[in-house]
Amino acid sequence: MSDIQIAQENEAHEIKPITAIAEQIGLETAELEQYGPYKAKVNFKAIQRLNQQADGQLVLVTSINPTPAGEGKSTVTVGLGDALRQLDKSAVIALREPSLGPVMGMKGGATGGGYAQVVPMEDINLHFTGDMHALTSAVNTLAALIDNHIQQGNVLNIDPRRIIWKRALDINDRALRQVVIGLGGPVQGMPRQDGFDITVASELMAILCLATDITDLKARISRIVIGYNFDRQPVTVADLKVTGAIAMLLKDALKPNLVQTLEHTPALVHGGPFANIAHGCNSILATQTALKLGDIAITEAGFGADLGAEKFLDIKVPQLGKTPDAIVIVATIRALKYNGGVALTDLTTENLGALETGFSNLAKHIANMQRYGVPVVVAVNEFTSDTEAEINLLQELCEQKGVKAVETSVWANGGQGGLALAHEVLAALDQPKDFQPLYDAQADIKTKLNTIVTEIYGGREVVFEGKAINQLKQIEKNGWGQLPVCIAKTQYSLSDNPKALGAPTDFTVHVRELIPKLGAGFIVAMTGAVLTMPGLPKKPAALNMDVTADGQISGLF
Amino acid sequence: MSDIQIAQENEAHEIKPITAIAEQIGLETAELEQYGPYKAKVNFKAIQRLNQQADGQLVLVTSINPTPAGEGKSTVTVGLGDALRQLDKSAVIALREPSLGPVMGMKGGATGGGYAQVVPMEDINLHFTGDMHALTSAVNTLAALIDNHIQQGNVLNIDPRRIIWKRALDINDRALRQVVIGLGGPVQGMPRQDGFDITVASELMAILCLATDITDLKARISRIVIGYNFDRQPVTVADLKVTGAIAMLLKDALKPNLVQTLEHTPALVHGGPFANIAHGCNSILATQTALKLGDIAITEAGFGADLGAEKFLDIKVPQLGKTPDAIVIVATIRALKYNGGVALTDLTTENLGALETGFSNLAKHIANMQRYGVPVVVAVNEFTSDTEAEINLLQELCEQKGVKAVETSVWANGGQGGLALAHEVLAALDQPKDFQPLYDAQADIKTKLNTIVTEIYGGREVVFEGKAINQLKQIEKNGWGQLPVCIAKTQYSLSDNPKALGAPTDFTVHVRELIPKLGAGFIVAMTGAVLTMPGLPKKPAALNMDVTADGQISGLF
Repeated sequence: MSDIQIAQENEAHEIKPITAIAEQIGLETAELEQYGPYKAKVNFKAIQRLNQQADGQLVLVTSINPTPAGEGKSTVTVGLGDALRQLDKSAVIALREPSLGPVMGMKGGATGGGYAQVVPMEDINLHFTGDMHALTSAVNTLAALIDNHIQQGNVLNIDPRRIIWKRALDINDRALRQVVIGLGGPVQGMPRQDGFDITVASELMAILCLATDITDLKARISRIVIGYNFDRQPVTVADLKVTGAIAMLLKDALKPNLVQTLEHTPALVHGGPFANIAHGCNSILATQTALKLGDIAITEAGFGADLGAEKFLDIKVPQLGKTPDAIVIVATIRALKYNGGVALTDLTTENLGALETGFSNLAKHIANMQRYGVPVVVAVNEFTSDTEAEINLLQELCEQKGVKAVETSVWANGGQGGLALAHEVLAALDQPKDFQPLYDAQADIKTKLNTIVTEIYGGREVVFEGKAINQLKQIEKNGWGQLPVCIAKTQYSLSDNPKALGAPTDFTVHVRELIPKLGAGFIVAMTGAVLTMPGLPKKPAALNMDVTADGQISGLF
Repeated sequence: MSDIQIAQENEAHEIKPITAIAEQIGLETAELEQYGPYKAKVNFKAIQRLNQQADGQLVLVTSINPTPAGEGKSTVTVGLGDALRQLDKSAVIALREPSLGPVMGMKGGATGGGYAQVVPMEDINLHFTGDMHALTSAVNTLAALIDNHIQQGNVLNIDPRRIIWKRALDINDRALRQVVIGLGGPVQGMPRQDGFDITVASELMAILCLATDITDLKARISRIVIGYNFDRQPVTVADLKVTGAIAMLLKDALKPNLVQTLEHTPALVHGGPFANIAHGCNSILATQTALKLGDIAITEAGFGADLGAEKFLDIKVPQLGKTPDAIVIVATIRALKYNGGVALTDLTTENLGALETGFSNLAKHIANMQRYGVPVVVAVNEFTSDTEAEINLLQELCEQKGVKAVETSVWANGGQGGLALAHEVLAALDQPKDFQPLYDAQADIKTKLNTIVTEIYGGREVVFEGKAINQLKQIEKNGWGQLPVCIAKTQYSLSDNPKALGAPTDFTVHVRELIPKLGAGFIVAMTGAVLTMPGLPKKPAALNMDVTADGQISGLF
């Protein structure tokens, strides 16, 4: 059965009213804003009340670099939550919400899989509670206000060649990466080069995920640098006097969404930046709410630990004010063999040599996470082709690195399949920890980038290309030289070359552009060929989708 | 007090749970999909059940050509519903839902005003239940799939110069009217000229408003002509094989939204094409649902009766299968004096001469509506500056045309201020009627256009410009020559010249472009300088908007 079939079969019989899910974690119905019977936003009154409560423990789920063989990080996150619930622990999950672009393309959803899913999966993967749409509206409203300002006299003296605020759609649309707008003569605006990002790459998504309340949201929006004037001075949203309008469009989107797993574990699904082109973590408000509502909050960060976890630990943690108590790294035997050079079609054959070679990728991520001073557990997401010898070898290899590797079968068995992992995570939560940030918050941008590249990616150094060199000067001149950095990099490799599997060494990472995100509070460093607007594949998933006369969806994945 | 202040004050004290509103018209809670406590979608099960019931009577509210002096058509529609409820009539309102573009620009909302509003007005005017966002997603997903098809080999042989499917945003953004996309080299798509419409102008909005169920929605989507191949043959969504994906994105948006007025009259607010650039009527499903749920359904059509009402009567009525039982034309003394040549600043001064001159506009709309064989009532939306002499004169002038003109003060007094109007409407509903369509459904496009221009607008004839002449040939060749026509024209005049007030005669209307909308089932004729993507004004309303720390919105209007 496909994920959507499992979800639909179980949703019909098992899904509980969201008010019942809320009640079991002490949320009153008056603290919810319901979107149909199975989805709700947690309102600001609830969040204020919860702020008085103590935090639970925090588990971060991350993974090796993704491969076409599949890892299943969201699935393990969901299954771990369900398993902890089966052990009578008060576990609450915090996930990112999916983006429509990849859903229509080929990625599949971000709601887990099999018997470890959050539901209603169709709603969550499509419009959900409208957060992505509110963001898209806000991004493009701001863009329209910028171009209108120029058209109406340009009092702020904005240089149309130096606008860095891009439009956005929650769609994979390569044709919008580079566009020329404002054509058609004087009444149709000022012609200029522009481009669209996918919504999840927009600074407003990062802001939504980092803001702690509406006041903070507004302060962050006001600081957004939309571009530069003809004197090369930054122009902000505050200068345009539209902070209130943009914040107004996001006031509801800022509230975390509550849903449930197939086993009724509460899940806060909120905010969805990709970790390859953005900061990759669900919202501070969702994670905080999970920490207040549960004794154990389980959250994930996007793609591999080089991207999502690094950004979680270096960008999100300082804002969250809470460090993780344990880190789970998800891997599969298949994916490690792929990292060891085995072709996709040969992954079902036992291959201990390839497994050991490919283990280098997992080993590097283990070392990286250990470096932060947090106990690490490896979750081996089971495939039927895994052999006992392979599993034994992987457990041995992990043991040598000082971590336990635990098999899970949550896709097939739900929480039951994650009990061993849950026990190991509970043991990790009891271990001593001493969180160590990767870099000094006051270090300059180049130092921070070099630290990430050498310590986390395992490379030799970072190299700035021409444009980025000039941008770095401008950034330092503007006094932004001490901000954290958010690297946009391929998810497929520890390096900036998607084809370099395993644990490459002695490579350089090329920074071709630096984009200041003053509202988010970091500088984005664009590396390699990473694109902030994906394209659709030759046969988009959209070709298989349908809806019946009574509204039943098929072909989502 | 501003509209938003009145709404907020009353919402806090008076608004009822939407389940209670539903109950009073016989809708069960299980037939609703709630979006927070005060908004709900009516599900398809309810619509199927209601289809077995008899229709109530239908009142269409329209108006004179809009002026900067203000008319208040939505306000009167809401107030009339409230007044009928006060007279113990089972009245249900059906309105269009607002578009964010004009909200951010200058139009204000479409939720009525003063004490005649639908609430929660902030939600309805912003993201509401996400219908506009679902449409925007669907429009742009289809566009991305078209460009991706070309990029991935173009099996359908689509001519990039002849794509007529435009992208859309629910934003006033003139810089996106004419753009070039796909720049940056072979991996970034095929460069071509393109443009964005405002979402409400998109054919998908028209389809959403005309579809009777998901099956019809899919059939209409499959028929959309997205452009032509190199052999000049039309290419449809069915050819692209993405009907299911696009319909899937709209499955929830298709369900009508139920809200309430400040006086708890049920209101179905659903679908929102503008009448100047699109067909201007709320959805068939909303109007049908109102007809089933109430003994009297009150609905409005956009802008003046030359646009909204004509399209209601000639495009929507044949699909709805129900003709109106009475038509209310909204006018104000101020707006008629403006039509009579008085400057905006002098409208508070009594001026009987100007009123009589400006009455020509109302007189033409009265005659037009009478032509359809439906009883007509004029609602005079009261302003404090109206003098008794002016009111008496207007009533006399209307009497000469065979219609009653009734003063209403619903902005200030809610339903109480609309009781006289309600009595007059009830009298009209008792009159005999004999609905006469404007044109023969089998007539050709030029004949239909000429009929509208001469009979409704009062002009001499329609003139096709070069491009439109060729397009007409193509349309006839493709067998679409008998479709209804939807004219895009300025709302400010009966002619295609926005400055020609009153009732101009002997003018020609220039058709510069014909756009086939096979899914909607009509041909759009673009006239004059009408734009399908509005721009923002020098001081956009967005500059005044704000949201407080606890989520209270201000400055909406």
